[in-house]
Amino acid sequence: MANSITAYDTIAAISTPPGEGGISIVRLSGDEAIQVAQRVFKGKDLANVPTHTINYGHIVDPATQDVVDEVMVSVMRAPKTYTREDVIEINCHGGIVDTNRILQLLLSQGARMAEPGEFTKRAFLNGRIDLTQAESVMDLIRAKTDKAMQVAVDQLDGNLSHLIKNLRQDIFSVLGQEEVNIDYPEYEMDEVTGKMMLEKAQEVRDHLVQLLKTANQGKILREGLATAIIGRPNVGKSSLLNYLLHEDKAIVTDVAGTTRDTLEEYVNVRGVPLKLVDTAGIHHTTDKVEKIGVERSKKALGQADLVLLVLDASAPLQSDDRELLKATQDKKRIILLNKTDLPAALHPENLEALVTDDSRIIPVSILKTAGLDALEAAIAKLFFGEGIENSQSNVLVTNARQYGLLAQAKAALDEVITALQNEVPLDLVQIDMTTAWEKMGEVVGENAPDELITQLFSQFCLGK
Amino acid sequence: MANSITAYDTIAAISTPPGEGGISIVRLSGDEAIQVAQRVFKGKDLANVPTHTINYGHIVDPATQDVVDEVMVSVMRAPKTYTREDVIEINCHGGIVDTNRILQLLLSQGARMAEPGEFTKRAFLNGRIDLTQAESVMDLIRAKTDKAMQVAVDQLDGNLSHLIKNLRQDIFSVLGQEEVNIDYPEYEMDEVTGKMMLEKAQEVRDHLVQLLKTANQGKILREGLATAIIGRPNVGKSSLLNYLLHEDKAIVTDVAGTTRDTLEEYVNVRGVPLKLVDTAGIHHTTDKVEKIGVERSKKALGQADLVLLVLDASAPLQSDDRELLKATQDKKRIILLNKTDLPAALHPENLEALVTDDSRIIPVSILKTAGLDALEAAIAKLFFGEGIENSQSNVLVTNARQYGLLAQAKAALDEVITALQNEVPLDLVQIDMTTAWEKMGEVVGENAPDELITQLFSQFCLGK
Repeated sequence: MANSITAYDTIAAISTPPGEGGISIVRLSGDEAIQVAQRVFKGKDLANVPTHTINYGHIVDPATQDVVDEVMVSVMRAPKTYTREDVIEINCHGGIVDTNRILQLLLSQGARMAEPGEFTKRAFLNGRIDLTQAESVMDLIRAKTDKAMQVAVDQLDGNLSHLIKNLRQDIFSVLGQEEVNIDYPEYEMDEVTGKMMLEKAQEVRDHLVQLLKTANQGKILREGLATAIIGRPNVGKSSLLNYLLHEDKAIVTDVAGTTRDTLEEYVNVRGVPLKLVDTAGIHHTTDKVEKIGVERSKKALGQADLVLLVLDASAPLQSDDRELLKATQDKKRIILLNKTDLPAALHPENLEALVTDDSRIIPVSILKTAGLDALEAAIAKLFFGEGIENSQSNVLVTNARQYGLLAQAKAALDEVITALQNEVPLDLVQIDMTTAWEKMGEVVGENAPDELITQLFSQFCLGK
Repeated sequence: MANSITAYDTIAAISTPPGEGGISIVRLSGDEAIQVAQRVFKGKDLANVPTHTINYGHIVDPATQDVVDEVMVSVMRAPKTYTREDVIEINCHGGIVDTNRILQLLLSQGARMAEPGEFTKRAFLNGRIDLTQAESVMDLIRAKTDKAMQVAVDQLDGNLSHLIKNLRQDIFSVLGQEEVNIDYPEYEMDEVTGKMMLEKAQEVRDHLVQLLKTANQGKILREGLATAIIGRPNVGKSSLLNYLLHEDKAIVTDVAGTTRDTLEEYVNVRGVPLKLVDTAGIHHTTDKVEKIGVERSKKALGQADLVLLVLDASAPLQSDDRELLKATQDKKRIILLNKTDLPAALHPENLEALVTDDSRIIPVSILKTAGLDALEAAIAKLFFGEGIENSQSNVLVTNARQYGLLAQAKAALDEVITALQNEVPLDLVQIDMTTAWEKMGEVVGENAPDELITQLFSQFCLGK
């Protein structure tokens, strides 16, 4: 990782979401950012304005002298900028044609079109942020719930980085000690050092085990929990869907006005983003004559991480219900006994023989919105565990890259511990200890290979 | 129209297009903008930073102390701002959840959710821009071609306003003269004044006639020209469609990734935005077996302002061709004789008896992209007239409101001219002259009724 500021060419991109809006931003970064902007700007002399100022003027096509837009140009000089390079942001009237025209003008005047994520990549290459922080930038943009956003903001703030740096420091301290011993074998402090190494290795390993446990939560927060609502016709699936999609739970993931059924639908249940599976079918039925049957329900099961199985508490269990209970027995599921507002014909006790796992059975009346708090609490508990939902600790492993490296570090520490317990010579143990230290370094981006960097930032959006 | 700065409450809205992007902006305007922002901002003391500066910090929920995002806050103090009020722009990492959360926090701290167009409305109410300029803001955002953008930018710059103000000044000068005569009848300058009034009325009227003539262009630039490609099967309709949709002509009007067929398709032909009618059917055919027949073509005609009728030059005219030629005879149309790369069986002369209007007949080979320049030139000429396409004058009447008022002003001047020619007493003529002056004032927003203002800005996008 480069820690000093390197000279890069000047890049440009539209940084606001695509589409029409009140303001669009075209962003430039690089050594020539200010000069390139000046070539298309009529207003103040940008080279001589103070840094971090906003300057009114017009974008003018230097070839035709046509005025393209009335703009505010933000001038931010290195190093206190997003990329640690000179950065220009042109705020224009958010039309598609004018914004694109401004970008084209900048490209014609010496800027290069930025690759996706290239601004953030430069922030990383120039040492302003490490790799976990860079990753958190996209997590933040894509966050679907407050909880997911909070985890991303904390990671952006360096919480995960600090934890990992502290753990690495712990390893480094005993590694150093051990090296002293190897260099000065006459001191024969092997036994003392070995004991110290064992303690540290166990301590760091325990931390890593805790951290690795958070990966499932991290993944769910990032990607949403694929959730299927199933049940035989007329048990209340679409009522449940409507309940989830209303009540401020629906998560807007795309521009208004696009057809709903073709989109993934997300709802926010106490910070857990549920990605609802196969809702189009449910949408197309009406509440009264709900047509989705057992076959369709079973089809939806395939993609689901969580199943909400709806049964009708006002009727005895039917063979279709039994079939669905059986089909879902290996899934994480919550069983809803709906229609508690009607005289009960099906009681939780009736399910005892059929539900042998620890699935929650929750009596509800979706019609009267009774019992739905218990449903929400059960979902939150299932995925955050007791108390974690509201915990202050937002340090989570949030992606497969982090998980893989930390798992390798943990495995290396397992080797260290076994070796020390078997009195393997310290200079051999040192190899695994160093591996653990290195793998943890890769998490924050130390010695990260170019291909990884390229691949990672290519998942970013344009203009970030 | 208020020309002094009035105190309004503080409004907030997300000003960037909806969706995920590199940067989102939450904008505040009003007397309390800086204080409201400060309540959720950890960083510098915004009340004491210089105006037009960009300030790094964090948005923090004052209730929970949770960090919501890392942001840059632009502080712009009245009067040199978009609204002429204090304006704050919070640039945040462009996620949907964090951007909405920031907006919610501002609303909880004393800001009110802005109505669509309310920032621009304040710019108007505070006298920074007049009504034609306000209208041009949305025209600029919605512009579909460079030409449309240019007209909007020029109008935003005040070109239309200046022209109208000058014409009004002309009327005012003789109105003043005339009032002197009424007040001092002993001077008996009626004859001289009457002559002057007639001259001025004719002069201004001629300008208005010219201006009213531009309305059709203005409308087309704003809304696009509904264009139908018709012809019997296999004449090359879908090749023409593909030609128009590629070659850098396609206009992106919506977010990438949404289904194409459900969208309106716009192409940019030399600055004329063509809104293609009924292209879904053409899309669904292949070039070789083009299934769209005469019936479908005739159906598409209904919505079209321009018809591109494609005939096959390599085959003699068929009865279906004759039928389409007849069906389109009252439409603006361009007739394409396609397949000039094959031996000719149909020549322009063969159409003489059938095409008695001044429709252009253009031989082309869409396959070999021959003759298509002539097609594009014909489209541009049809709508901009000779030479106007590249003219420097971008003063156009761009909407029905402007057109209606200017037409009323012109009608009043017609009355004035007739009256003066019939030696009607000057104090009666004055009434119509004043009407013309007032109607032209309404174009720029003088004495515009509240309902009009409300209705006009409600068509704006949120955050503008």
